[in-house]
Amino acid sequence: MKVIAMAGGVGGAKLVEGLAQVLHPNSLSVIVNTGDDFQHLGLYICPDLDTVCYTLAGKANPTSGWGRADESWNVFDEIRRLGGADWFHLGDNDLATHIMRTFYLEQGWRLSEITAKFCKTWGVRVRIFPMTDDRVATVVLTKEGNELAFQEYFVHQRCEPMVAGFRFEGKANAQPADGVIDAIESADLIVICPSNPWVSINPILSIPGIREHILHKKVIAVSPIIGGLTVKGPAAKMYAELGIEPSAIAVAQSYHGLIHALVIDNQDALQASQINDWGIMTLITKTLMDNGSDRERLAKEILDFSASIL
Amino acid sequence: MKVIAMAGGVGGAKLVEGLAQVLHPNSLSVIVNTGDDFQHLGLYICPDLDTVCYTLAGKANPTSGWGRADESWNVFDEIRRLGGADWFHLGDNDLATHIMRTFYLEQGWRLSEITAKFCKTWGVRVRIFPMTDDRVATVVLTKEGNELAFQEYFVHQRCEPMVAGFRFEGKANAQPADGVIDAIESADLIVICPSNPWVSINPILSIPGIREHILHKKVIAVSPIIGGLTVKGPAAKMYAELGIEPSAIAVAQSYHGLIHALVIDNQDALQASQINDWGIMTLITKTLMDNGSDRERLAKEILDFSASIL
Repeated sequence: MKVIAMAGGVGGAKLVEGLAQVLHPNSLSVIVNTGDDFQHLGLYICPDLDTVCYTLAGKANPTSGWGRADESWNVFDEIRRLGGADWFHLGDNDLATHIMRTFYLEQGWRLSEITAKFCKTWGVRVRIFPMTDDRVATVVLTKEGNELAFQEYFVHQRCEPMVAGFRFEGKANAQPADGVIDAIESADLIVICPSNPWVSINPILSIPGIREHILHKKVIAVSPIIGGLTVKGPAAKMYAELGIEPSAIAVAQSYHGLIHALVIDNQDALQASQINDWGIMTLITKTLMDNGSDRERLAKEILDFSASIL
Repeated sequence: MKVIAMAGGVGGAKLVEGLAQVLHPNSLSVIVNTGDDFQHLGLYICPDLDTVCYTLAGKANPTSGWGRADESWNVFDEIRRLGGADWFHLGDNDLATHIMRTFYLEQGWRLSEITAKFCKTWGVRVRIFPMTDDRVATVVLTKEGNELAFQEYFVHQRCEPMVAGFRFEGKANAQPADGVIDAIESADLIVICPSNPWVSINPILSIPGIREHILHKKVIAVSPIIGGLTVKGPAAKMYAELGIEPSAIAVAQSYHGLIHALVIDNQDALQASQINDWGIMTLITKTLMDNGSDRERLAKEILDFSASIL
C-alpha cells in the first residue's frame, strides 16, 4: 500500500511521524507546503519542510514543535547584538540547515534535491517532497487591506491581523517538484494531515497538476479543528474571520469535492451526520496527538478505515 | 598627530592594537587589505578586516590570532555533518558577523558602511576602512602554472604550492573606499604594519589612488621578516620562492621608493647599513610583539622615531 501524506508544519508532522511508524519507508511519501518559505537575513528558510524532516529524523524540538531538540543559540544571540532582526528565532543547528540550503540553492540545486540530501544525512528514509521547486509565496490579505508575507503575519505579527483572504504568489507558473506527480499516481491513498487548510494545504493544492491528480485517488483528511479550536496555529481564527464558524463541518466544506472521508474528533461526533450528508464519510476518534503512541494509533486507524472507502 | 596604519591580518592587527593604545581614536585610521575576502558556503568573509576589528574590540582569539575569543563551533559542527566544506573554520560568533555582512551587502550596503556599523556595536572607536568597497581578489600564481584564489592557497592548500607571482583581480576598476583618500590626505604619518608585503600590503597599494597619495606622506614600514623568518604566514616562503632571500633588506626593496624608514629587528641590525644606502632610515628594535606591552612599546617607538623623518 502506497500512501502520500500532505502536510504543513507541526500538526502535519505529528501524523506523518505516526504514518512513518506504521508504514515501510518505501510506502510513504510526504508532500510539504513551501508557501511559508522566506528569506531571513539572507538565508532561505523552509519552516514546514524543516519541521517535517526534523520530526522524522527525531531531531525536532518536542516542546515547540519547530526547530531542533537540544538546540543552542550562540549565533542568534550574536546576530541580535549586531542589530539583526530577532523576531524569527534561529538556533545553531537549525542555522546550519539554512546556511547549507541557501548555499546549495545559489549553486543551482533544486529544493527537492537539497531536501533529499539532508534527509539522507539525517537517516530519514521516507521520501519528502517540497510541493514545488519553484517559488510560491503565501500572502495574507488582511481586513485592513494590507498584504502580508506569511511569516510577517504568522511570526512577526503573531497572527494578530484579521484575515480577509490568501494569495499564493507564483502558483500559476509553478510546477510540482520532480517526482510529486509520479508519487501521487502510484499512491493508493492520500492523507491530508491535520494542517491548516488555508495556509498549509491549499498552497499545495494550488500547484497546477496536484489537485487534478489527487481527484482520481482515495483521499482522507484529518480535521485540524477540534471542538471549534485548533491545537496550534491560526486555523480556527482564520475560519472565524472569514465568516465561517470553525468546526469539523467547516473543514469538510474546505475539502468538499476532494476528499472521501474526514477524520473528526470524538467531541465533534455530532457534526458527522451533516458531513456524511455531503457524501463524505467520517471516522470519529481521538484526533489529538498528545504523544508518539497517539500518532501511531491515529495513523493505524486511518489506514484501516481507508479500506472501507470504495 | 594623525596616523594611518595599513594592515593585513594577524601581525598587522597586533601593531594596530599598539597604536590604538598610544593614540587618541580620532588620530588613528586603519586601511585593511580585502584581497583575501572570499565567499564560503555563500557567506562573504573578510578575514583581515575581521582580525583587525576583533583585535581592537578585544574579541580576537589570542591564541590563533584569527576568529573570536571564547568561541563555540555548534553551527560549523552541524554544517560538517551536513557535508559542507570544512577546510575553513567558522565559529558561531564569527558566523554571526558573516551572516549579517552578507545580508547587508545583499541589501546594497557598502563594505565600509557595514564595517563602521559593526565597529560601533563593538565599541571600536578607531576608524577602520576596507581598502576598497569594490571586489578585488588576490590570486596566487603557482610555479605549476595554476591560479589559486587566495584562501584556496592560504588555508585549503596551507601555502604549500610554490608561488610564481600574484594578481589582484579587479584592481583596475576599483576605487578606494569612501574616506580612505581623505584620511590619507590629512595624515601626518603612514605606518605600514608588519604584514605580508606580497599579499597584504601590495593589494592595498594596488588600488588606484592609494599609492599616489601615500607618496606625498611620511611612511614608515615595519619588517615582517625577522632573522629571515616570519612570525606567522608565508611571507618568507614567498620571498624565497620568488628568488629573493627573505630578509629586512628584501622588505626594504619591496617598499623602495615608498617608505622613508623601515623598522627592523635587533637581530637584523647588520642589514641596516645596506638599507640606509638606499636612502631608507632604519629603526632597530625588538619588533616581535609577544604581548600587549610589546605592541604598545613598538607603537610608541615608531611614533617617536617618525619625528626624525624630515
